[in-house]
Amino acid sequence: MPGNSFGQLFRITTCGESHGGAVGVIVDGCPPGLCITAEEIQVALNRRRPGQSKITTPRNEADAIQILSGVFEGKTTGTPILLLAFNKDMRPQDYAELKKVYRPSHADFTYMKKYGLRDFRGSGRASARETLARVAAGAIAQKYLKEQFKVEIVSYVEQVGNLITDMPMAKVTAKAVESTIVRCPDKAVAKKMIALIEQLGREGDSVGGVIKTVIRNAPAGLGEPVFDKLPADLAKAMMSINAAKGFEIGSGFEGVVLHGSQHNDPFANVRGKTRTTSNHAGGTLGGISTGEDIYFRVAFKPVSTIMKTQNTVTTTGKATRLKASGRHDPCVLPRAVPIVDAMAALVLMDHLLRYRAQCGDQK
Amino acid sequence: MPGNSFGQLFRITTCGESHGGAVGVIVDGCPPGLCITAEEIQVALNRRRPGQSKITTPRNEADAIQILSGVFEGKTTGTPILLLAFNKDMRPQDYAELKKVYRPSHADFTYMKKYGLRDFRGSGRASARETLARVAAGAIAQKYLKEQFKVEIVSYVEQVGNLITDMPMAKVTAKAVESTIVRCPDKAVAKKMIALIEQLGREGDSVGGVIKTVIRNAPAGLGEPVFDKLPADLAKAMMSINAAKGFEIGSGFEGVVLHGSQHNDPFANVRGKTRTTSNHAGGTLGGISTGEDIYFRVAFKPVSTIMKTQNTVTTTGKATRLKASGRHDPCVLPRAVPIVDAMAALVLMDHLLRYRAQCGDQK
Amino acid sequence: MPGNSFGQLFRITTCGESHGGAVGVIVDGCPPGLCITAEEIQVALNRRRPGQSKITTPRNEADAIQILSGVFEGKTTGTPILLLAFNKDMRPQDYAELKKVYRPSHADFTYMKKYGLRDFRGSGRASARETLARVAAGAIAQKYLKEQFKVEIVSYVEQVGNLITDMPMAKVTAKAVESTIVRCPDKAVAKKMIALIEQLGREGDSVGGVIKTVIRNAPAGLGEPVFDKLPADLAKAMMSINAAKGFEIGSGFEGVVLHGSQHNDPFANVRGKTRTTSNHAGGTLGGISTGEDIYFRVAFKPVSTIMKTQNTVTTTGKATRLKASGRHDPCVLPRAVPIVDAMAALVLMDHLLRYRAQCGDQK
Amino acid sequence: MPGNSFGQLFRITTCGESHGGAVGVIVDGCPPGLCITAEEIQVALNRRRPGQSKITTPRNEADAIQILSGVFEGKTTGTPILLLAFNKDMRPQDYAELKKVYRPSHADFTYMKKYGLRDFRGSGRASARETLARVAAGAIAQKYLKEQFKVEIVSYVEQVGNLITDMPMAKVTAKAVESTIVRCPDKAVAKKMIALIEQLGREGDSVGGVIKTVIRNAPAGLGEPVFDKLPADLAKAMMSINAAKGFEIGSGFEGVVLHGSQHNDPFANVRGKTRTTSNHAGGTLGGISTGEDIYFRVAFKPVSTIMKTQNTVTTTGKATRLKASGRHDPCVLPRAVPIVDAMAALVLMDHLLRYRAQCGDQK
Repeated sequence: MPGNSFGQLFRITTCGESHGGAVGVIVDGCPPGLCITAEEIQVALNRRRPGQSKITTPRNEADAIQILSGVFEGKTTGTPILLLAFNKDMRPQDYAELKKVYRPSHADFTYMKKYGLRDFRGSGRASARETLARVAAGAIAQKYLKEQFKVEIVSYVEQVGNLITDMPMAKVTAKAVESTIVRCPDKAVAKKMIALIEQLGREGDSVGGVIKTVIRNAPAGLGEPVFDKLPADLAKAMMSINAAKGFEIGSGFEGVVLHGSQHNDPFANVRGKTRTTSNHAGGTLGGISTGEDIYFRVAFKPVSTIMKTQNTVTTTGKATRLKASGRHDPCVLPRAVPIVDAMAALVLMDHLLRYRAQCGDQK
Repeated sequence: MPGNSFGQLFRITTCGESHGGAVGVIVDGCPPGLCITAEEIQVALNRRRPGQSKITTPRNEADAIQILSGVFEGKTTGTPILLLAFNKDMRPQDYAELKKVYRPSHADFTYMKKYGLRDFRGSGRASARETLARVAAGAIAQKYLKEQFKVEIVSYVEQVGNLITDMPMAKVTAKAVESTIVRCPDKAVAKKMIALIEQLGREGDSVGGVIKTVIRNAPAGLGEPVFDKLPADLAKAMMSINAAKGFEIGSGFEGVVLHGSQHNDPFANVRGKTRTTSNHAGGTLGGISTGEDIYFRVAFKPVSTIMKTQNTVTTTGKATRLKASGRHDPCVLPRAVPIVDAMAALVLMDHLLRYRAQCGDQK
Repeated sequence: MPGNSFGQLFRITTCGESHGGAVGVIVDGCPPGLCITAEEIQVALNRRRPGQSKITTPRNEADAIQILSGVFEGKTTGTPILLLAFNKDMRPQDYAELKKVYRPSHADFTYMKKYGLRDFRGSGRASARETLARVAAGAIAQKYLKEQFKVEIVSYVEQVGNLITDMPMAKVTAKAVESTIVRCPDKAVAKKMIALIEQLGREGDSVGGVIKTVIRNAPAGLGEPVFDKLPADLAKAMMSINAAKGFEIGSGFEGVVLHGSQHNDPFANVRGKTRTTSNHAGGTLGGISTGEDIYFRVAFKPVSTIMKTQNTVTTTGKATRLKASGRHDPCVLPRAVPIVDAMAALVLMDHLLRYRAQCGDQK
Repeated sequence: MPGNSFGQLFRITTCGESHGGAVGVIVDGCPPGLCITAEEIQVALNRRRPGQSKITTPRNEADAIQILSGVFEGKTTGTPILLLAFNKDMRPQDYAELKKVYRPSHADFTYMKKYGLRDFRGSGRASARETLARVAAGAIAQKYLKEQFKVEIVSYVEQVGNLITDMPMAKVTAKAVESTIVRCPDKAVAKKMIALIEQLGREGDSVGGVIKTVIRNAPAGLGEPVFDKLPADLAKAMMSINAAKGFEIGSGFEGVVLHGSQHNDPFANVRGKTRTTSNHAGGTLGGISTGEDIYFRVAFKPVSTIMKTQNTVTTTGKATRLKASGRHDPCVLPRAVPIVDAMAALVLMDHLLRYRAQCGDQK
């Protein structure tokens, strides 16, 4: 299969370039009967929207989503759902000079190597604008998961540069995340993060960070051994997001120094239910969800677009110097939070349907 | 699709349990005309084999592989290749007591939750014995990549517990990796790692670690935006390996503290070729290989099977205490190295064929 | 996977209902560098368009197609192509009475059985309006096949009711097909077919027929044993078209009475090339194209919508009588010709890319 | 995907050549908890086995099937099931002369064109021996369908050459089919068919025929619009069988002469259930099963291997004459019946799981 689809049974196929006609997604396989409106989807999109705060790019896109198929009288019909947002604030002239030069750490060079030609307007298909489609589709999955299982997916900015919150995951709420424009629920640290991002914006530089996600109330049994384990599909989902460089679940990289006797999560009977008394596993065993909280972390590199002069080459291989202009984020983390939420929802939703196919309705 | 296949065009489907009749794999989509013998595949399997050194489980399996289809007169014919190893040293009686108890941090509980029954003999399908099939299939991919592009995949143990080698990746050779039984090319550190593993073996405990991989001579252009990016598929591949808890490519989690001006990799014309003068990216941009070295790290948790008494519950939810017996590795890292090699080869091979389908033969 | 995608490597995903917002298709996997315009696609769509002649439904839809992604400066970029046509001439009021009744031989009943609800406006997703998306995508495949291999796909109406042309397939040209509104290249028979369709239109009745297709210049080697044989994928493609009831390739059902000594196609050296001197096979052997003409026939049932009173039941199971109104074709064959062309092109294109993936560029 | 897998969720991947080591299949996605034994599967295989009667090839293969994974204590575990039969009665010397010549109407030529080399022993992968794997996998699907829904799949030989039974489909039982060695339930016609096949065997010639299948008690709701319609997937399944040249469902090719007013199947309330009072549709509407009997017909060409001298060319393009020797069937129909049964079961089973994934457990 070509690479623009994700999921096996709750399957999305996205399309659209940064400065093409529109960005869209077909969601195929959605269970029938789910109530969904464009307004609900718009709420999720507004969290990803450019220009939403002083620390994001000023590109002004309403990202107004339309539902063009698959929903009738307010309900999904089981047929494919087309969600579409037309591009509005396009300034291709901003990109004319990029036609003949490869921007460092962007995909210009590799798209040219692969396809022999490229849409050089604002990174074309490689633009993070594509993630709009993911967030729109993810909103449908999130609604279903919430309605059916009270699944709650809470992603938040844990780290920006060297600034890290030590707020315990268990205390983080969706509301607290949304209470700061940097989407870090720890207000004191959030304030410092915002200041750092603003400063880097002024300097024309950028910085990376880490998003942490906790998923509550995910049913046990999700994940398909041996290749489509839940952590494997989550890893793929997250590493497919622009700028992602690392993924870890549960104890992750830090857990490798522990001994088995420290790391193992004992089972116990907790009010009639088999639970684990610790959760180094991060909510999965053997690639299948346990019913405990699923949690993971995703590393994002500093944004590649900076306003400083850089060495590079032209498309014909001549050394040159480049200083970007245009409209960009000094840090992708705040806007990446809803993307991580969406991708997590898409993975869970897909595995929910896969569970059902083989094992029947969840009990 | 069910979860026992990997790859789109160079596609493997594995089967087999720890104590079932056999472990096998069908490799579908292999280009015709590749010379391959069971002996060549066996070389790779012997690196994964139990009982290969004093720091691995003494379970005695020859893992003798047979080619039962798809190869004629020494060459692949383009038809599906069946590779099969019968199980020999099975001691199901070792597992009788495990029928009614959930081992902490094993998949016993989740398999039961998902399927309603389980093969309790030596973890059944959740056993790392399954990875035999991956290594066998990967050997075919590795041969093809080497013959066609001189691709070299070198994985090694970088960390066991707190012991870390600082040997520069560029100096690591396949031969040096194989020169120590722990598969760390740094002999001084390897010696300490071996001592630690032996000590933990005596204590009935276990430890985790990190494997690092560098891929040299991978062609540019591999990776399919926007979901099947090369790092995304590598992440999935690695996170599907038993005990894997984390994946990072290029600068990974450490790179998040850098600024864009520090992290960006400048392009330069190096002897007529467009190259980057640094490689924080880890060999991919926009999810597509650049032609530079691809490198990544995989975190493995400590082995769940330990010989110490642990709290757990029975399958009917009663609290109990469990002390494992049987034959196990105190540290999976040395035997996981060929598995990581194999999975990397499978990802590259698949993307090579996907490139060809859309963009024609590699130039 | 859900059922709204077709093809493995040249993969289309369609969406849209008869009276929803739009009908669209994402084409993923198209080779980069193909010149394509909306105007070229429109030419194909106009052959399928309602209201194109006196023997088709008067529903007035321009079916104006837009290219919203994947094409830059007139060329495909290798990224997904979104083709979209907004619905215009919708008269949902025509369908209000159909909300509570199952039309005989329509999909109303089965959609309700499957999904528990349905879009009752003009058959919703089950409407042949969906095939607009197939024709649009097929136009891209046809252009590529023609440019690269001079592949010519010629479908035509061979039979309407009892009226059959005996014009030899070898003499049929695309131009001759287009010279009659019924798309039968035999003008004398075409005239009778048109008269029959007009008469049935007046009577409020309908009739079926057979489309025959010949594909010239298809490269040898296309088709993937053992399940994705070329005839198997052609059969699936054709049987997925609304109203299709039968498919046969080469000698088909009539050939079963022959003996092997009569049916076998001898090989011969024809001007230095291995050819067959007859072609009962229909252009494939062992599921793989031989390089000879590929030909097949597709049977279409009479249109289910008729203006005569019929017995049926309501959605609550009460007996009732129904007389359809609305705008419909008494015979789908003339408008189905471009759909068959498109599906054939999609199958060939997909297999071309699959060939390339495993066996390299076609020689 | 390569072409050796069938099904999306109940997914089989087959391997093996006529004269390789073994023929096998991995069944992935089978629901857990199904009781199945090798003996049950063997019963189905014995219907396909060579040498089963005087009208089939005398090649002597027990086709003894082994279950090597996925079944524990007599029940499927939800993990992949490996079914394997080793090849025994191989006489590669019979095929030495075929190394350098293309047999008319066999796949020798196309395999060479596609792959550049071929296993010339007994047609290699193109041999109908491959269908053994389909029958084995189909037996599992049939058992599940029967247990869960009392689904009954009855295929039978309706036509051999010009000999056709007019026994009404509704009267055909599985037992009656098995009562004659030609698998035609009409004893008088069966006798003539057997005589014809024997005569052609003596003459070294062969003949084709038609298999008809009726499926009783299939649940309503199976089939995935718009491409994976039930008739489309059945067509693909049947046309992927060796020697198949045509497929039709319901009224098929004959129905095209009817008018809509004759062909439409009226709905009626029959004992509280919505049924149709005729069934020209063949059990599906809009590609989805109605709950009525599903019936279809498959055309098979005369066997290509005949013992008469034929004109052909060598692999280097020289004209030559060929007279086959070896062991073959003059008519594939009797042995194709269980293959058609198996493929029908695989299609239904797959669609059952697909229904469940999107719409939940069947009611």
